[in-house]
Amino acid sequence: MPAAAAAASLVLFAPSRSSSSPRTLRRPSLLPLRRATAAPSRPRTPRLVAVRAAVAIEKETPEEERPETFLRAADGHHGAASASVRARFERMIREVQDEVCAAIEAADGGGKFKEDVWSRPGGGGGISRVLQDGGVWEKAGVNVSVVYGVMPPEAYRAAKGEAVSGNGNSSVKAGPVPFFAAGISSVLHPKNPFAPTLHFNYRYFETDASKDAPGAPRQWWFGGGTDFTPAYIFEEDVKHFHRVQKEACDKFDPSFYPRFKKWCDDYFFIKHRGERRGLGGIFFDDLNDYDQEMLLAFSTECARSVVRAYIPIIERRKDTPFTEQHKAWQQLRRGRYVEFNLVYDRGTTFGLKTGGRIESILVSLPLTARWEYDHKPEEGSEEWKLLDACINPKEWI
Amino acid sequence: MPAAAAAASLVLFAPSRSSSSPRTLRRPSLLPLRRATAAPSRPRTPRLVAVRAAVAIEKETPEEERPETFLRAADGHHGAASASVRARFERMIREVQDEVCAAIEAADGGGKFKEDVWSRPGGGGGISRVLQDGGVWEKAGVNVSVVYGVMPPEAYRAAKGEAVSGNGNSSVKAGPVPFFAAGISSVLHPKNPFAPTLHFNYRYFETDASKDAPGAPRQWWFGGGTDFTPAYIFEEDVKHFHRVQKEACDKFDPSFYPRFKKWCDDYFFIKHRGERRGLGGIFFDDLNDYDQEMLLAFSTECARSVVRAYIPIIERRKDTPFTEQHKAWQQLRRGRYVEFNLVYDRGTTFGLKTGGRIESILVSLPLTARWEYDHKPEEGSEEWKLLDACINPKEWI
Repeated sequence: MPAAAAAASLVLFAPSRSSSSPRTLRRPSLLPLRRATAAPSRPRTPRLVAVRAAVAIEKETPEEERPETFLRAADGHHGAASASVRARFERMIREVQDEVCAAIEAADGGGKFKEDVWSRPGGGGGISRVLQDGGVWEKAGVNVSVVYGVMPPEAYRAAKGEAVSGNGNSSVKAGPVPFFAAGISSVLHPKNPFAPTLHFNYRYFETDASKDAPGAPRQWWFGGGTDFTPAYIFEEDVKHFHRVQKEACDKFDPSFYPRFKKWCDDYFFIKHRGERRGLGGIFFDDLNDYDQEMLLAFSTECARSVVRAYIPIIERRKDTPFTEQHKAWQQLRRGRYVEFNLVYDRGTTFGLKTGGRIESILVSLPLTARWEYDHKPEEGSEEWKLLDACINPKEWI
Repeated sequence: MPAAAAAASLVLFAPSRSSSSPRTLRRPSLLPLRRATAAPSRPRTPRLVAVRAAVAIEKETPEEERPETFLRAADGHHGAASASVRARFERMIREVQDEVCAAIEAADGGGKFKEDVWSRPGGGGGISRVLQDGGVWEKAGVNVSVVYGVMPPEAYRAAKGEAVSGNGNSSVKAGPVPFFAAGISSVLHPKNPFAPTLHFNYRYFETDASKDAPGAPRQWWFGGGTDFTPAYIFEEDVKHFHRVQKEACDKFDPSFYPRFKKWCDDYFFIKHRGERRGLGGIFFDDLNDYDQEMLLAFSTECARSVVRAYIPIIERRKDTPFTEQHKAWQQLRRGRYVEFNLVYDRGTTFGLKTGGRIESILVSLPLTARWEYDHKPEEGSEEWKLLDACINPKEWI
């Protein structure tokens, strides 16, 4: 995994503020009952500590209220610092979280998001919002997080495109490189099998100058995308969805949509099945070869396009009558979603290995999923058409 | 992953007979519709070929009938060869497959196994049997397979405990090492939330002398285990299950049960949750530091103990009345099963990466599973007790 991608995915999972004291590693998800009242005693898992020692993690602390910012004081949004990309990106993702959650609740007509706010002692934190078993959505998660972390020097060198060698000639001396990352991540699984699942994620990543290499230049990257996963194809929906993505891209660079559409088809690929998870959208990662302000504006435009890309489709499909067979096919496709996320998704697999907030990471999984042995849709059926489009990605617009 | 473990898990997934011609890579599971009639065109996935080039795979061929043996002629069971460990192990796992399937069908009272037989041109093959949506079981898979493969020389050296170095002093010259592997693998998921899921797997692994190192000694290993995963604890059931495992072990070595019980608790660990998948049993891998005949007899004893370890529990629990809440909890535990298998299980993850028969690999997944956000059972409840036992493994007998 490219270093920048690995580090960028930290955004969603908030691991590793420091590599000190792996012995004090504690997470609510390791001790799921501790919060409630008494709890089973600590798991006897010496191997766990060994596995996580490389990327130890500070325990997140539940907060009663949303802070105005998760940035450290020096990065805060008072005075000149408020104009920093860090500060503006955090404001953007929190506004988008509010906007998307409001649109989801309005369309759901009953379900309400449950919110968990958490922070880490040294700075950073997040807001997880989940709507479960609503009128329209089975499970909808919209999370923002801000992470202050430290990456190994090899990862930093690799990200800069330098060869990792032991000859000591690197421009960066060995030593951990502090980084900052912020992002919004969301997966929305509706109940109706004709209403598509949506995923989007926008993230911003910066390295500080290393303590051991004070002259090293600061690096930054943007990543993200919006993709959707229907169980049945309505061409009108697919075209609308892709058209909104293209419009957002075209405001910035005519090469963006074709490039990021293909990147999306390549990324959401379930290798062992030879098929994609869904019908794509846009995806980009490690993006820093354009003007920083332009990419901030581009990410903002993409994130702000989510509601108009998705909600009109939901309004059209949420009440469509369906049979048990339609539902079973949706559930099989949900199984594929689980396979992709647990086996291939960089953010999920990295987050699981490094000890992010498990409930925030796995909120991307559907409420329910299904695996039938050797299921093959009948040729020419609607199920077959969806599968064909997942095997052979199409140009929809 | 230790080389021997990696190679041993091949048993279940039958990858890689030869590393030639990755361009001709074809699998039914990549082309799920091809068998039926017409099919979507080939997926455009150049990355797939690159990923799999290191361990290419011969396409499996469906067979109409079960052959008497999957062994190559030279290994066959005529004459002296029939007394080889290879031949006896294959006979054992096929007998156990018949025995377990017969017991399952009898207890299910309605469901019948569907059988898929397949072979590979250069030798080897397998029999996959699946009972889906039966009277008692939601999904029950019992597979045997025989694989002739080739392992990289580094893996062979690592398995022999030699340092992998470039100094050319190894006792084994560089060059692929042919191996043989055979195994039985089974996962049985009942419908009733009070009836436990069972998994067992027994496998035997041998290397041939390498072409480039004709003098290299032949190596062999045994691996396997039986473990069970209830959603609710009935102490009587857990004790019975573990007692049968201990009895099988004690016939051979008093150290086996405590050692393999702990190995099982350590292996089926969902690191990101800090909990085990279930209530354990026995597990061993890379076992070759005992007499070969003794270990063959031990594996046979363990495999032949499956029916009496499991079926009496099923008979007691299969008709227990249950509520929607019981079912939802079972489904959450099935979600954990999916997490373990897709994220950690060596066999599954190795099989997915190297291109085994996907439907045989993933038959281990339950028919249905569930993920609720931040679910925490109430302290002292039956669900809490199960979770506690998964976090803190107990000595049951």
